[in-house]
Amino acid sequence: MDLNEKAVLKHKEWQGKIEVISRTPVTNKEELSLAYTPGVAAPCLEIEKDPELSYELTRRGNLVAVITDGTAVLGLGDIGPLAAMPVMEGKCCLFKEFAGVDAIPLCVNSKSVEEIVRTIELIGLSFGGINLEDISAPRCFEIERQLKEKLNIPVFHDDQHGTAIVVGAALINSSRLTGKPLEEMTVVVNGAGAAGIAIAKFLMLLKVGNIIMCDKDGILYRGAPYMNEAQEKMAQITNRDNKTGLLADAMEGADVFVGVSRPGLLTAEMIQSMNEKPIVFAMANPVPEIMPDEAKAAGAYIVGTGRSDFPNQINNVLAFPGIFKGALQARATDITDEMKLSAAYGIASIIPQEELAPEYILPDPFHKQVAANVAKAVADAVK
Amino acid sequence: MDLNEKAVLKHKEWQGKIEVISRTPVTNKEELSLAYTPGVAAPCLEIEKDPELSYELTRRGNLVAVITDGTAVLGLGDIGPLAAMPVMEGKCCLFKEFAGVDAIPLCVNSKSVEEIVRTIELIGLSFGGINLEDISAPRCFEIERQLKEKLNIPVFHDDQHGTAIVVGAALINSSRLTGKPLEEMTVVVNGAGAAGIAIAKFLMLLKVGNIIMCDKDGILYRGAPYMNEAQEKMAQITNRDNKTGLLADAMEGADVFVGVSRPGLLTAEMIQSMNEKPIVFAMANPVPEIMPDEAKAAGAYIVGTGRSDFPNQINNVLAFPGIFKGALQARATDITDEMKLSAAYGIASIIPQEELAPEYILPDPFHKQVAANVAKAVADAVK
Repeated sequence: MDLNEKAVLKHKEWQGKIEVISRTPVTNKEELSLAYTPGVAAPCLEIEKDPELSYELTRRGNLVAVITDGTAVLGLGDIGPLAAMPVMEGKCCLFKEFAGVDAIPLCVNSKSVEEIVRTIELIGLSFGGINLEDISAPRCFEIERQLKEKLNIPVFHDDQHGTAIVVGAALINSSRLTGKPLEEMTVVVNGAGAAGIAIAKFLMLLKVGNIIMCDKDGILYRGAPYMNEAQEKMAQITNRDNKTGLLADAMEGADVFVGVSRPGLLTAEMIQSMNEKPIVFAMANPVPEIMPDEAKAAGAYIVGTGRSDFPNQINNVLAFPGIFKGALQARATDITDEMKLSAAYGIASIIPQEELAPEYILPDPFHKQVAANVAKAVADAVK
Repeated sequence: MDLNEKAVLKHKEWQGKIEVISRTPVTNKEELSLAYTPGVAAPCLEIEKDPELSYELTRRGNLVAVITDGTAVLGLGDIGPLAAMPVMEGKCCLFKEFAGVDAIPLCVNSKSVEEIVRTIELIGLSFGGINLEDISAPRCFEIERQLKEKLNIPVFHDDQHGTAIVVGAALINSSRLTGKPLEEMTVVVNGAGAAGIAIAKFLMLLKVGNIIMCDKDGILYRGAPYMNEAQEKMAQITNRDNKTGLLADAMEGADVFVGVSRPGLLTAEMIQSMNEKPIVFAMANPVPEIMPDEAKAAGAYIVGTGRSDFPNQINNVLAFPGIFKGALQARATDITDEMKLSAAYGIASIIPQEELAPEYILPDPFHKQVAANVAKAVADAVK
């Protein structure tokens, strides 16, 4: 039986990957009168007096909503909200299993930015945080921006920021291993969609020296005729020397390649044209921009992919469970840049300097300490 | 420590009365690849092909949303959506503990019928059913009506129909015990708000002979000058003889009193004016329209209240867990009148004829068989 058949079979067996249980027994009058009427009126009135108590008297203090509109699900694209649910449930499993955070999956049956924002805004107070998931660009930017403004709980589009944070952690440890300071690195980000732009912005926060973004028509430079609005904005703040040309031109002399694009786009020649100790993060999924053995043969010093069957898996699960756990613990009202930076350093610092190696710049996703470490780092960054 | 203090303390201890857990471990690559990427893509695509599979491949088949706007919470009134959450969580506990149904609490931060309907409509496909809760009249009528039309899953406002069904069950068993056929009974329903109107409508489905509704200004009769729109409609279809006057007038010769009104409104004199073997369901909470001992002293044969410290507790928990369990099992797309009737008879039939007694016309809320019995009755009524 192949993986797909087995996954369908397992999903039938599970009948849902999450379950809602009661934290208190209700087996007699006394228990009923405390958990429900008439006793429950008292905690209600406490919250009415002091809304902050909702974090203590209900599940809100440990509860995240995982919300999608089903428009950009995995590599499957716009499969709709109903078909997206297995992914959302899976994400909720990861929240619980990796960080003990309760998560509820919600699929919204609309593609209108306005409607999605309003829907989430109206139910937001039921949760301690909102994890947006698999929403297509450019709608995801606007939905997140508006929700961050309207809600006073953390809102985080994981496809953008989760990936960016883990790439950041991988780069921090590459810097620790190679001795190249981030400030002196040139990083090429190939793929200027939602993920690529979020990565580039995050690398700027990390003070990476020079970032060059590429998309299918070539390098994003000031004045390039083929850019959309979001890309134009990025061209203003990246590409220090306003380099022009194609990916091959961008790669010449670069220190790092970050790919969120398509299989096969990175060639051995491009790697050979890079600065010494080339670093390649080829994250196209499931087939990377270049296969790790090929990259290594071409001279790459560090190679990371999105895959679990090669070293240095760049996996969001290193970030989001701990980020929300930390945000909830600190009762953060937002996920700030400081918290994201702190998360990246929290992931990176799991590996002691002496253990760092080209094949080991990121902790294993199942490393028990990651979520707790990230949570602490994130909570410490909440002012 | 009084009940209120204890309830607050317990709520602090519980840190939320519900919890979301994972039904599958995610501790290694194989498990991760089945519950999440890349394996999860397969069940997604199955659902995209056949939406009905969402009931098998996700939790939808056992999942209800408990949704409020916080406008009519218990007897507390409009305390707002945030403060309503302890009640919604409590309801979710009852769903799980009494029927094994998973339930997720959601509080909507709007009082606009249009916005509430649209919000629930857009997230509806995340669930197998919607339990509306503690929404004030007359908004609750319109919200439920529109949602039943727009969604193809069961939608049920428990404050209306749950109470009506349990009153119906109590009346069925009162009829079995006294030998008075429902068709020959005159029932006075005091309190013509959402609950009273739902009860009267349900008693009509049960083919109760004559129903007279009263509100604070007196009997609802055709042409009464003090009725709102919903009450005018009820006056058209109840009160067979178009009786006029006050509650005392309605009670003369009546067989049954059903109170969803205020403490103290039913007097001993009124009971004495009733037909033989008077039946009194005094459900004002926490203090009933007349105390049971007083009603008994005045000649009442059967007395029920909403309270757990007297016999014949008329408690919604006898109905809603089993109703949704049955609806989910049968994959019902609606809760129909037939299903509600079947639920009432399902509750009533738990007590064998020979065990029926004036102090025992309703099963104890903790009776283990109730939810399963109701679920089966409801599922059988799904065409």
